[in-house]
Amino acid sequence: MNHSKSFSRVTMGMKSSLIRELVASTKNIPGLISFAGGFPSPKTFPAQQLAEIFREVVKNEGQDVLQYGASEGDSLLKEQLLKWEGLDLSQDEMMISVGATNALYYYGKTLVDPGDVVLCEAPTFLGSLVAFDALEADCQSVPFDDDGILMAEIEAKVRSLRLRGKNIKFIYVIPDFHNPGGISYSLQRRRELIRFCLDNEIPIVEDNPYSRLRYSGEPLPTLFSLARGEFGDTSLVTEIVSFSKILGPGMRVAFAKGDKELIGKMVSWQQKINITPDCVAQRAVARFLEKGLMDPHIASIRAFYTPYLQKMLSDLERYMPESVTWTKPQGGIFLWMTLPENVNADELFHAAAQRQVSFIPGSKFYPQGQERYNKLRLNFSFATPQQIETGIRRLAELLV
Amino acid sequence: MNHSKSFSRVTMGMKSSLIRELVASTKNIPGLISFAGGFPSPKTFPAQQLAEIFREVVKNEGQDVLQYGASEGDSLLKEQLLKWEGLDLSQDEMMISVGATNALYYYGKTLVDPGDVVLCEAPTFLGSLVAFDALEADCQSVPFDDDGILMAEIEAKVRSLRLRGKNIKFIYVIPDFHNPGGISYSLQRRRELIRFCLDNEIPIVEDNPYSRLRYSGEPLPTLFSLARGEFGDTSLVTEIVSFSKILGPGMRVAFAKGDKELIGKMVSWQQKINITPDCVAQRAVARFLEKGLMDPHIASIRAFYTPYLQKMLSDLERYMPESVTWTKPQGGIFLWMTLPENVNADELFHAAAQRQVSFIPGSKFYPQGQERYNKLRLNFSFATPQQIETGIRRLAELLV
Repeated sequence: MNHSKSFSRVTMGMKSSLIRELVASTKNIPGLISFAGGFPSPKTFPAQQLAEIFREVVKNEGQDVLQYGASEGDSLLKEQLLKWEGLDLSQDEMMISVGATNALYYYGKTLVDPGDVVLCEAPTFLGSLVAFDALEADCQSVPFDDDGILMAEIEAKVRSLRLRGKNIKFIYVIPDFHNPGGISYSLQRRRELIRFCLDNEIPIVEDNPYSRLRYSGEPLPTLFSLARGEFGDTSLVTEIVSFSKILGPGMRVAFAKGDKELIGKMVSWQQKINITPDCVAQRAVARFLEKGLMDPHIASIRAFYTPYLQKMLSDLERYMPESVTWTKPQGGIFLWMTLPENVNADELFHAAAQRQVSFIPGSKFYPQGQERYNKLRLNFSFATPQQIETGIRRLAELLV
Repeated sequence: MNHSKSFSRVTMGMKSSLIRELVASTKNIPGLISFAGGFPSPKTFPAQQLAEIFREVVKNEGQDVLQYGASEGDSLLKEQLLKWEGLDLSQDEMMISVGATNALYYYGKTLVDPGDVVLCEAPTFLGSLVAFDALEADCQSVPFDDDGILMAEIEAKVRSLRLRGKNIKFIYVIPDFHNPGGISYSLQRRRELIRFCLDNEIPIVEDNPYSRLRYSGEPLPTLFSLARGEFGDTSLVTEIVSFSKILGPGMRVAFAKGDKELIGKMVSWQQKINITPDCVAQRAVARFLEKGLMDPHIASIRAFYTPYLQKMLSDLERYMPESVTWTKPQGGIFLWMTLPENVNADELFHAAAQRQVSFIPGSKFYPQGQERYNKLRLNFSFATPQQIETGIRRLAELLV
């Protein structure tokens, strides 16, 4: 039987992951220094603490955590999360999901019919573009500068889309330590975006995997907390927080907070697709929080990555020609480089692979047809400081 | 902001779970004896063994299992599963998912466009009906007898659907210890179904949560192994196996086996929706298998449930009036009761709740518009043998 002739429309249109192919193409290069992935350093995983917690949880609470759990997530975990974040929310304004992309998929399934417009930043996280593709959304991107999304551009985009009768379902943004952009929204830009979205009735989904990984500067309020606080609005913003970069992505635990009715529908989608997230992992995160281990652990990760970022920034300063610029993030795990207009990062990728250094070409972070080619993303959380110097030098030699 | 006006079409059409509502309505009845759920007995969870395995896995392999894993699932787990089942498959004919319903959703997303026909048994597992609803499939059901799906009925159904130009994407069946039906397909019916589906090019998805929970009689080959063996066909059948009833549903680990290309697309869906299943739980299952703990553990569950089934069957025999019949399963966790034509199990549910006993009315296990009302499902894995006697007696008193 040949199944391919009866694949669904979306399945037929699926492309294999471009990043996977790129990464696979460099897999067998000996001595390759990779700035490509988005993997946290395994040295930051609190494996010894978690090993004991997993044992305790399964030993003492096995009858509970090995059984089916609630589709909205473990109420003990939600209780710990509400306490940890210090937010005045009720449990039904929060759900637990199988990682952040999973919550974003539920959010999208709740709102998007095929052809509906989803607004995003240009560039944006590739995994989210892939999820929007799976929803058959019409993904429209808006550029940003060092302070966040460009308000004039989003206003023009929304006006033009609505004039054409398009149905805008939401805007997806990453205001803190943007992936791949490396920037964070200023406080003013956060306020402007919220005001604009309230006035234009465009829900915001705020992807927040990185805000707790700040190495310098002062923390800024999330869109979620600004909207609830200053603007007194409880329904505009849905925030998705991942534990992938602050605990370990293999555990697949994330949570979403937002409007009660919207969260309720996301839970209905979870019931249809996953029934419930892993109950053992959820309870392990709950106990990790309850024991007060989270904040000291995050402080240790910040201390761990600080020299990595500093090293990459100083090596870029030292080795890169003047025609090349890059963002100077205060946190997260990525920075974003702009090459001269005539340099194509997709081509540079292959030349760099020959020189045993890799990155992700910037074109992969735009919706189809909206690409920019003189950009690239550098990750600084995986290669060691020694490798960072060698890798940046190799890359610079190709650009001089 | 009122989100409900911009919900997607499918989200607007979502009904809250009928079973959830039923179960919630009986929640505060003191002394209720429940035959309603599909929960395994927590006494069957190997919590002490798993507690040590979780600890070892996170302690010794934390750098690996706390990191992002492969979307197709942990290759170490797949290796152990292939060894355990003794099948001659390659790794790319298998994927790991976040429970069995999750694999079924991926299977459906791979094949179904809105309006496509999905064939299923009548009655069938409610969770799967819910997943097919989420795919906007046109779900068409075919009745079965004690030997399995009725071949004359499925032939007529397929002919009539195709005459009307309908696109049949697959048939979903539960051949072993059917939920809710309590029957298992005879060997002959298995062969007839495979032959028919090969001739008519209708892929089969075989849901297999229970085949290893056999308390009497001889095991029969799965459709998957029959198709690959006797029929020499590697693409017709996709089998989904869950660990929910033989290890613990809270761990959310299941696997699917089938045609390489089809499995590859299911993996692409997993990449978009969950990235990867929980890597810690996957590795814990792998080590549980590797240590040779699985088969003795399953033998202990079989020994545990055997008296539960015997007790329920003998109490039914003892207390029920002659007008009531029921299936006599050799395994699984459910049996299916047929009441006189004029008795409505939806109404009986409320009367039974007053008498402190519950079950799931049979109507919930049919696609909308195809319900039967004089049926009900009884679970025998959760209430104790003492409770079984009391509960069956109470129920019988309402039917005499």
